[in-house]
Amino acid sequence: MALIVQKYGGTSVGSIERIQSVSERIISTQQQGHNVVVAVSAMAGETNRLMNLANQISEVPEPRELDMLLSAGEQVSIALLAMSLTQKGIKAISLTADQAGIQTNAVFNDATIEYIETDLITKWLNKGYVVIVAGFQGRDRIGNITTLGRGGSDTTAVALAAALNADECQIFTDVDGVYSSDPRFVSNTRRLKEVSFSDMHVLAKSGAKVLQEHSVTHAWNSSVTLRVLSSFDDGEGTLICENPKEVLAVTGLALKQDLFLVECEGISAKEQRELYKQYKVLDERCDCFQIVVPKATFLQLKLAFNTKIRNISSLSILTLVGDNVEGMAESACNQLMANSIDIYQYDIEPKSVSVIVNQADLQRAAEILHKTFVITEQSQDNNLMIAVS
Amino acid sequence: MALIVQKYGGTSVGSIERIQSVSERIISTQQQGHNVVVAVSAMAGETNRLMNLANQISEVPEPRELDMLLSAGEQVSIALLAMSLTQKGIKAISLTADQAGIQTNAVFNDATIEYIETDLITKWLNKGYVVIVAGFQGRDRIGNITTLGRGGSDTTAVALAAALNADECQIFTDVDGVYSSDPRFVSNTRRLKEVSFSDMHVLAKSGAKVLQEHSVTHAWNSSVTLRVLSSFDDGEGTLICENPKEVLAVTGLALKQDLFLVECEGISAKEQRELYKQYKVLDERCDCFQIVVPKATFLQLKLAFNTKIRNISSLSILTLVGDNVEGMAESACNQLMANSIDIYQYDIEPKSVSVIVNQADLQRAAEILHKTFVITEQSQDNNLMIAVS
Repeated sequence: MALIVQKYGGTSVGSIERIQSVSERIISTQQQGHNVVVAVSAMAGETNRLMNLANQISEVPEPRELDMLLSAGEQVSIALLAMSLTQKGIKAISLTADQAGIQTNAVFNDATIEYIETDLITKWLNKGYVVIVAGFQGRDRIGNITTLGRGGSDTTAVALAAALNADECQIFTDVDGVYSSDPRFVSNTRRLKEVSFSDMHVLAKSGAKVLQEHSVTHAWNSSVTLRVLSSFDDGEGTLICENPKEVLAVTGLALKQDLFLVECEGISAKEQRELYKQYKVLDERCDCFQIVVPKATFLQLKLAFNTKIRNISSLSILTLVGDNVEGMAESACNQLMANSIDIYQYDIEPKSVSVIVNQADLQRAAEILHKTFVITEQSQDNNLMIAVS
Repeated sequence: MALIVQKYGGTSVGSIERIQSVSERIISTQQQGHNVVVAVSAMAGETNRLMNLANQISEVPEPRELDMLLSAGEQVSIALLAMSLTQKGIKAISLTADQAGIQTNAVFNDATIEYIETDLITKWLNKGYVVIVAGFQGRDRIGNITTLGRGGSDTTAVALAAALNADECQIFTDVDGVYSSDPRFVSNTRRLKEVSFSDMHVLAKSGAKVLQEHSVTHAWNSSVTLRVLSSFDDGEGTLICENPKEVLAVTGLALKQDLFLVECEGISAKEQRELYKQYKVLDERCDCFQIVVPKATFLQLKLAFNTKIRNISSLSILTLVGDNVEGMAESACNQLMANSIDIYQYDIEPKSVSVIVNQADLQRAAEILHKTFVITEQSQDNNLMIAVS
């Protein structure tokens, strides 16, 4: 008998019908002889609905009250999932993050889990219950409700798995695993059977959306084996672990879009240093420099610096990830330039090579790099895998 | 400086616009130099929306999980109200019933408040905050979320006022006070300036919906002065207290509709005794008897007794309430009969006289009794009040 922590995102519990099928999936896990703890997000659309109510009052709602508001979303989904299981004859109990003992720091809207007091969860598990915990939320030391920020339910699941010493943390989502690149932009992508923590961390940091960077780090640090699975289809998904049995030459191609190339002029030296610390610098001349920032950040900077900054163009970053990609940088740039794709900058880091191109060239560049380096004819011939020696 | 507890119902916080005007009302109370604690219901329609989700899973949802679900409704409204006050520059904090220390028994869906641990509320009041508490909910001794059943937010407000020793508990609702009868059925009704606890208790028990019977009893037992006010209009509303300055000959006419006259045949003696304990008996012959039950109760009884019970007709009860109404029973019946209204039964109790009529006669009977005994020409001449000697 194993202890499995499962996480279901907003789309997976987006309607009563989907909640019913999530409960079937939980029952099937239990029937394989496992104990199950479940972390659940708010029903799809609910967090936006609540955020919209708050924004009718203020563009920047009071942070503590925003967490009080948003955490109601998961309270609804955990109760409905517990009802659904009970209705099917399965013993189940829902717990808010407060009840489940998930203690965080006091940073509203972006809290970090400090500790999970697991006594109550363990008590219910020992009684044979499926324990359903509200994802994305916690309580601070004096009992205020906090939320964990983006991807928070993944973090809840990983932290629960670590605290409970679970055998596997299964992240159910709307895709059936981690892919060699984003199928919306690239053809012939392939689901990866296994990915190492270190590769997954670089993929997530470089724009792969299937897992949030922070939850990968947390799992890695806590040695929690992760598995990404589809809520809608059966399959073995992708296993993320310390030492995959098989390692690919290139694990994948991550894409990050909606970046702005921003030109700054007449900004103080101190502010310039702050910006340099946080963002890629592309060009620099005495009083004028260019940095690459996410679109949302540009809007904030615009408020602060007004006419001193302006958006020059929209960029994307493509990142090849794998143990031995460093040597491919030159060849990658040559391939792109041979296809008339301008390269703003390229970076070589351990386990990654990234190139910055115009947003308009993203799809074409991604196809070229994926076909040349990730899923090559040769790698297909070799049954896609290169055995570790 | 007084301590005022205010309660706002679902209609009063039914939209962001209304939440904004509730916060204006709270600010105006604070500006009069008072400390304010607020109990809030879920936004109008929200409890029904959540109940509908639950009913898609089960007609009778698991009780603990139903309370987990429904309590999310008030969590949304308290957060939005606190945001609205903060946005207007007023210090405000929202507290779930759990955080506010509202401890109940463990009867899910219909819990009773046992105790309020007021330390946290008092701490925030002392710091100059408006404290906004989730109505309708509590926590049991082991930390489960409970709900208080119908009218629960009124109960929360009264219990908070009692525990905090508040100077007044103001119930804001969609009418501007307690009326001499239900204005939807009776013309020339009048708002009452003051009503005694004992009269209000009989009015609530007899069908007046403005205050829930249980919360009146609770206020009476705890000597909490109540005031019923409109959320939408200014005015002094109706004061409910131990000793009103002025007492009317007849305080009001309460109406209770949607009752069924049910004939039972072939039911065991034991079951008959149970029904007799709970409901009015209108007719009895050896194996067959008639009782008066609310429509919802009839549907439950029908499930239990099937063909042994049947609905004969729809009835209403009209109840005259006041210190000296007992002597008016005969005259009331005569007035109704003179207008060809059948009377199924009449009851005389201390402070009340009630008659049972066909539902179809309700409006006509109510007009006659109200005009004859409650707002008579004489009472209007006397400025509507008879001073207590």
